[in-house]
Amino acid sequence: MGNYRIAVLPGDGIGKEVTSGAVEVLKAVGIRFGHEFTFEYGLIGGAAIDEAGTPLPEETLRLCRESDAVLLGAVGGPKWDDNPPHLRPEKGLLAIRKQLDLYANLRPVVCYDSLVSASPLKPDLVQGVDFVIVRELTGGIYFGQPSGRVVENGEEKAVDTLLYKKEEIERIVRMAFILARGRKKKVTSVDKANVLSSSRLWREVAEEVAKQFPDVTLEHMLVDNAAMQLIRAPKQFDVIVTENMFGDILSDEASMLSGSLGMLPSASLSASGPSLYEPVHGSAPDIAGMNKANPIAAILSAAMMLRLSFGLTAEAEAVEHAVRQALALGLRTADLAPSGGRIVSTNEMVEEIKTAV
Amino acid sequence: MGNYRIAVLPGDGIGKEVTSGAVEVLKAVGIRFGHEFTFEYGLIGGAAIDEAGTPLPEETLRLCRESDAVLLGAVGGPKWDDNPPHLRPEKGLLAIRKQLDLYANLRPVVCYDSLVSASPLKPDLVQGVDFVIVRELTGGIYFGQPSGRVVENGEEKAVDTLLYKKEEIERIVRMAFILARGRKKKVTSVDKANVLSSSRLWREVAEEVAKQFPDVTLEHMLVDNAAMQLIRAPKQFDVIVTENMFGDILSDEASMLSGSLGMLPSASLSASGPSLYEPVHGSAPDIAGMNKANPIAAILSAAMMLRLSFGLTAEAEAVEHAVRQALALGLRTADLAPSGGRIVSTNEMVEEIKTAV
Ligand SMILES: CC(C)[C@H](C(=O)O)[C@@H](O)C(=O)O
Ligand SMILES: CC(C)[C@H](C(=O)O)[C@@H](O)C(=O)O
Repeated sequence: MGNYRIAVLPGDGIGKEVTSGAVEVLKAVGIRFGHEFTFEYGLIGGAAIDEAGTPLPEETLRLCRESDAVLLGAVGGPKWDDNPPHLRPEKGLLAIRKQLDLYANLRPVVCYDSLVSASPLKPDLVQGVDFVIVRELTGGIYFGQPSGRVVENGEEKAVDTLLYKKEEIERIVRMAFILARGRKKKVTSVDKANVLSSSRLWREVAEEVAKQFPDVTLEHMLVDNAAMQLIRAPKQFDVIVTENMFGDILSDEASMLSGSLGMLPSASLSASGPSLYEPVHGSAPDIAGMNKANPIAAILSAAMMLRLSFGLTAEAEAVEHAVRQALALGLRTADLAPSGGRIVSTNEMVEEIKTAV
Repeated sequence: MGNYRIAVLPGDGIGKEVTSGAVEVLKAVGIRFGHEFTFEYGLIGGAAIDEAGTPLPEETLRLCRESDAVLLGAVGGPKWDDNPPHLRPEKGLLAIRKQLDLYANLRPVVCYDSLVSASPLKPDLVQGVDFVIVRELTGGIYFGQPSGRVVENGEEKAVDTLLYKKEEIERIVRMAFILARGRKKKVTSVDKANVLSSSRLWREVAEEVAKQFPDVTLEHMLVDNAAMQLIRAPKQFDVIVTENMFGDILSDEASMLSGSLGMLPSASLSASGPSLYEPVHGSAPDIAGMNKANPIAAILSAAMMLRLSFGLTAEAEAVEHAVRQALALGLRTADLAPSGGRIVSTNEMVEEIKTAV
C-alpha cells in the first residue's frame, strides 16, 4: 500500500493521448493493488514554449524533483520547427535529461508473439527477440561543447563535440552489466573504435568494468556492423550498451523488430533523483488528436516505472500481462495493422488494457 | 579502344581474393571490348604496415595519383587490432580518402530479383529496392580536430570533433542532386538537425542547393527515423545524402536489403584526381584465404569504375548483366545461402561472371 507522486509531462502531439492512457492504466493498478498514485501535470516542449516561453520551465523541473517518478509523453511538432535552437521543443527534452541526471536510458526491444507478423523482418528472425538497449543519455555529442556556427577566414563552418569522461562511460557500462546479470549474461558494447578516440576510451573502460562481472560475457561491436546485425540476426543480443547518438539511431532501427515504434517503452534512470519514463516514439503530429495513436509504448513505460522506481514487480507484471492479452485478443492500433487483428482506437486499446490489469 | 591505368590495392583478408576476381573480370572486358587495362599493385592497410611500416606508404599514393582509377579491396584484421592508432590498417583507408580528396562515396543498394529471399526482410518489401546512398567521405567526425585523450583535473576524457564547412556540404549535396536527376528525382537528406549544429548547417545548405534543381524533390529525414524507414519501407528512397558517420551506419544497415554485405559496391569520387572503387564490406578475416568470399561487391565496384571513371557504359552494363545472370543461374557464395541456389566458391563465381561478360 504505497503512496506515489508522479509528475506527468504530456508534451506535444500524441504525447497527450498516450500519457493520458498510461495514467488511466496506473489508476487501475492503484485500485486493484491498493496504492495511491497522485498525478501532477507539468509543461514541456512546444506546449511549454507556447504557455511559458521556454521548453522547460523552472516550475516543471521543481515538480519533477519533488516527485517519485516522471511520466513523459513526447515533444515537438511543425509549429516550432523554425524556432531558434533554444526555443525548440527538443531542447526541453535534452534539458530535463541533463538536469535530472538521467544518464541511463533503457530501451527494451521485445517481439510479442502475436505481433511477429507486424515486423518488416521475416517471422523466424524476430520471434523470441528480447534484448535491451542501454543508451547513455546525458553525454556525448548531444551535450559536448563547443557546438555552434563559426565563420573563419570567410568560411562558414559548424561544429559539434563528442566528449566522454571516463566516469560517464563507467556508470553506464556498469548499468548494462548489472542488467545482463539478471538476463542472459551477455553485454554487447557498440562503438566505432576504429575511428573515434572517444570510442577507444569507451572500449577500454568497458573492458575494465567487465573484470568486476566475470559471470557476464562482453563483446565489442562496431556501430556499422551493429546496425546490420540488428536486422540480420537480432536474437544474438541480450544487453546492448552504447553512447548517446549510436543509441538513438540503433533503438529506432530496433523498434522494427517489435513491429512498430509504438511498442517501445523506455526508462531514463537518474543518478541522483527521480527517474523518467517515456515512450521511444515521438509526437507524431500527423495523427495527433485523432484517437489513433498506439498507447502501448507509454503504458509499458508506466510498467517500467512501477518496477524500477517503485519496486512494484507484481503490479508491473500485471500491466505487461494486460498488454500481452489485448494483443493476443487481436486488438491493434493502426500502426500494427500489418499483423492482422481488429483495428481499434487509442481509447479502446486503453480500455481493454486497464480492465485486464 | 582505350588505355587505362588501374592501381590495385588489395589490402588485407578477403580484399586480396575479391580484387583478384574483379581484375579478372576487367581483363575479360578488355578482351571483349578491345581496351587495354594495365594493373599496377600497391600496399595499403595491414599489409602495408607489415611490409613498409605504415598503413599508407608514399609509394602507394604516388601510384594512385599516376593512375586513371583505383581499385581497393579491404583493410584490417585482428593481427593489427592492438596497434597504436597511427599504425592501424583503417588509418590507411582514412588517409587515402583524404589525400585523394575522395569526398563523394556512392553506395548503390539494389535488390536483385533472384536474391529477394536472401534478405532478412519480407520479400514484398525488398523486391525492386533500388536507391543510392551518397555519403560524405572526407569530413565530419572522421577527420575533425581536436580528437584524442585529455586528462583535466585528474579526470580522463576523450574527445572527437564533428566539423563541416559549408563548401563541403554543398559539393556532396550537389552530387546527390545530379545523381537524382538521372534517377527518380528525389533526394532524402539525412541529418540530426534537432540536436546537432552541423546538421542545421547541413539542412540549410541542402535547401540552398535544392533551388538549383527545381525538377528534383528534396526531403529531410532525421537519422534515427531514417534507420527505421530503411527497413520499414525501403522503396520510398531514391538518393539518400548524408554526412560521413551517418552514411557509414546506414549503408551497412541497408546492405541487408540486397541480401548480403557481399553485394554492395561503392565508388569514392575525387574532387580533383583519380577516383577509387571498393566493396563496402570489410576484410572478413574469419573467411580470408578460404575461397569463400563473395566477389560480387568488388566486381560491381569495377563496373562502377568503368562507368564513372572511364565513361564505358556498355562495358559497365556487360559486367552488371553478367552478375545478374550468374545469380539467375543459381550460383551463390556462402553469404547468399538463404536464397537457395548452388553454393559456389569465389573462383567459380568469378569464372562464371567473366565468361558471361
Ligand atoms: C527528440 C530527440 C532530441 C530525441 C533524441 O535524439 O534523443 C529522440 O529522438 C529520442 O530518441 O528520445
Ligand atoms: C574501416 C572503416 C574505417 C570504414 C569507415 O568507417 O568508413 C568502413 O566501415 C567503411 O564503411 O568503409
